[in-house]
Amino acid sequence: MNPSCRISLNTALLNHYIDDKALTALQPRVNEIVSSLFNKTCAGNDFLGWIDLPMTIQKELPRIRETARRIHEQADHLVCIGIGGSYLGAKSAIEFLADPFTGNRRVLFFGQNISAEYSESLLQYILQKQVCVNVISKSGTTTEPAIAFRLIRNTLAKKYSENELKKRIYATTDRARGVMRHITDEQGYESFIIEDDIGGRFSVLSPVGLLPIAAAGYDIDALVAGAADMAQFCRDNRNVLENPALTYAAARFSLYQQGKLVEILSSFEPSFTFLGEWWKQLFGESEGKDLKGIYPTSANLTTDLHSLGQFMQEGRRLVFETFLMLQQVGSRLVIPDDPANSDQLNFISGRTIDDVNRQAFLGTKFAHYAGDLPNMTMTIPLRNEYVLGQLYYLFEFAVAVSGLLLGVNPFNQPGVEAYKQNMFALLGKPEYEAKRLELQRQIDQEGTAA
Amino acid sequence: MNPSCRISLNTALLNHYIDDKALTALQPRVNEIVSSLFNKTCAGNDFLGWIDLPMTIQKELPRIRETARRIHEQADHLVCIGIGGSYLGAKSAIEFLADPFTGNRRVLFFGQNISAEYSESLLQYILQKQVCVNVISKSGTTTEPAIAFRLIRNTLAKKYSENELKKRIYATTDRARGVMRHITDEQGYESFIIEDDIGGRFSVLSPVGLLPIAAAGYDIDALVAGAADMAQFCRDNRNVLENPALTYAAARFSLYQQGKLVEILSSFEPSFTFLGEWWKQLFGESEGKDLKGIYPTSANLTTDLHSLGQFMQEGRRLVFETFLMLQQVGSRLVIPDDPANSDQLNFISGRTIDDVNRQAFLGTKFAHYAGDLPNMTMTIPLRNEYVLGQLYYLFEFAVAVSGLLLGVNPFNQPGVEAYKQNMFALLGKPEYEAKRLELQRQIDQEGTAA
Repeated sequence: MNPSCRISLNTALLNHYIDDKALTALQPRVNEIVSSLFNKTCAGNDFLGWIDLPMTIQKELPRIRETARRIHEQADHLVCIGIGGSYLGAKSAIEFLADPFTGNRRVLFFGQNISAEYSESLLQYILQKQVCVNVISKSGTTTEPAIAFRLIRNTLAKKYSENELKKRIYATTDRARGVMRHITDEQGYESFIIEDDIGGRFSVLSPVGLLPIAAAGYDIDALVAGAADMAQFCRDNRNVLENPALTYAAARFSLYQQGKLVEILSSFEPSFTFLGEWWKQLFGESEGKDLKGIYPTSANLTTDLHSLGQFMQEGRRLVFETFLMLQQVGSRLVIPDDPANSDQLNFISGRTIDDVNRQAFLGTKFAHYAGDLPNMTMTIPLRNEYVLGQLYYLFEFAVAVSGLLLGVNPFNQPGVEAYKQNMFALLGKPEYEAKRLELQRQIDQEGTAA
Repeated sequence: MNPSCRISLNTALLNHYIDDKALTALQPRVNEIVSSLFNKTCAGNDFLGWIDLPMTIQKELPRIRETARRIHEQADHLVCIGIGGSYLGAKSAIEFLADPFTGNRRVLFFGQNISAEYSESLLQYILQKQVCVNVISKSGTTTEPAIAFRLIRNTLAKKYSENELKKRIYATTDRARGVMRHITDEQGYESFIIEDDIGGRFSVLSPVGLLPIAAAGYDIDALVAGAADMAQFCRDNRNVLENPALTYAAARFSLYQQGKLVEILSSFEPSFTFLGEWWKQLFGESEGKDLKGIYPTSANLTTDLHSLGQFMQEGRRLVFETFLMLQQVGSRLVIPDDPANSDQLNFISGRTIDDVNRQAFLGTKFAHYAGDLPNMTMTIPLRNEYVLGQLYYLFEFAVAVSGLLLGVNPFNQPGVEAYKQNMFALLGKPEYEAKRLELQRQIDQEGTAA
């Protein structure tokens, strides 16, 4: 990997909390953890498929590309049905790569909520358009996407013959066991496989993310190449001061031990918004268990400097910040001169907007540092597929190490079941009757009108 | 106010932390605080214009409505230039009221960031459209909107004559002193006034919010009426158990004292997303000072139950949650039956999507409660202007009380200046030379490439 295109991490402004010596002290534990990942001996070792995914997925890329090309011929929009990792990977990539003002409307998302009004509006919209569907669900029984898939088949049946509809549905599901696999085989949908050892939040570089990203018009070969280069780098360099994934994992673990319980991922580009959402799932779901974990949150700057900025600067000191700073942008727009200078900004006339944004970033990080908000900066060389692939892998590797440092299994998510079990009971699912009665008792007791 | 249309708050699921007795214990202090607000004797008493704003703004409504009508005739889009409170109020209202899938594209936002690519793309887009501009800035010197205003005048000068352009620019600014007032009077823009005693985050019910909201096609009379009814209710009812603004303020203060340092505002409708952003500014900027304050963050459910849900259920216990639950939605969409029942969902065939969403909410709150995530529920009767007006006022009143309980001045934001000062210095603003040299020394020391 060309070092000038590699994502880097600068931790200098953590120096009131962490220095190189503190990071180096974690090196032996990090060595053990990294070995346990590559040897597949760590906690959660049945979900380590993501480690080699940038290499193992290569053979699938031609068919994914070809399918994306066909979808482009068939349809105005691809409607992706999925939630959690089956939503955030593709969504974050498309938003990251799209024009930040106009967006990219080729791919629509459905089944990521249970909002009746959102659902009805989307269904009405697609009746007027040519669409394909990518239903993404390992099991096929996750409630949100399952409902959406029923709704969309029902709607599109008004528009397409049964045979035509089958050619417009693409399934991304497990290899053999699940309900969606069964439907897929029965109906003859073209399908892509989510391997059993790939968890949802680690699936963006599998067909889960790659098919929608390709259908939106982006270069998945470059995306995977970036991830593969970062994967190789993580195999080759296990130095906690040199490998940004390890530096990041070690630094945040140390900050957590010092009472920094909230992390803000801040960027200065609106295109990064959903990357923040993806990151929140990756870190929150991997670390937030056993009553542990850093609460992950994100901010868009300078927008949020005019909302959360006050808290960041002077509020309760429980937060640290990680900046994602884009190094090179594709616009040379400059600030026009104003002979009247009524806004007193002529001292920056002729400078690029991006230069001002960059000085805002520098001003912010030193202001936050001075306000005892420790921060580090991850430099993102370019906004393109190759760099994004690196970034996905970097964060995946980092959260694996950071979760294991914390002493949790970073690859499970037992707590996600709790609301589902309650919801099934309240909806009257057979075999949940005892739970339903208990919840009904609690609802009556609460006396809620909701 | 018709009680069936009034927002209510249920705190039953805080009972492991707070009960009515604990809330009642705060009544004397709350009485003092509420009196100090109405008597204007509290900290920050030069910024209490929001208290009577729903009444005092009434006389401006006809001209705002009339201007919105004219903008509708003149233009495809109104481009609103503003940041912080000059952005989030209108943005949150429009997103709350718009179709949650298609959105409302009548109003575009600019100057809420310094992204070069966003700026360039927006400017290119508006060259093809008929537009008006609403520049919203008390002073006229806030960097982000000032840059955007330069850019947009420069771009629109290619399209409209000087005279025509003047008729398309509407300024919302201070009465007498600021730079924007000077430009406005000089150029003869139609203008609206932000009173000196209205802070940015309390300005949604002033022309700052109302003109864009009206231009987007919404009923500002109903919005203001809802706020006025809640304002009257807050004057009349100072009981901490009966007035939801006071209950909310007292409950969160008590939770904070018990180590709940992060609040998640959760909703089950995507239309609530930017209401969460508005709320984050209101609470974060009002409370986050003197090293105090609850860190405000928001979630979209059930979407985020598949990302943050794991942390909420089982992660570090420093969080409490406030649900905003919409009671009545405008869609009766139902789940189609599937004779094959391959997804095993036939037990909910024929039920409305909204009913499922509602059971997901109930399931979630009891799951979180069982997981020691204390939560309360604010019930929002309808998604309309009248209810939204209530909600804005309720939160404004609540944060005033809650900030004063915390012992801070809820109406200033001294910390927002820090990054600006640094940015000005780094951009070489005259008179900032000493600061610039100091920052340059820090930058060199950090050895950052960014």
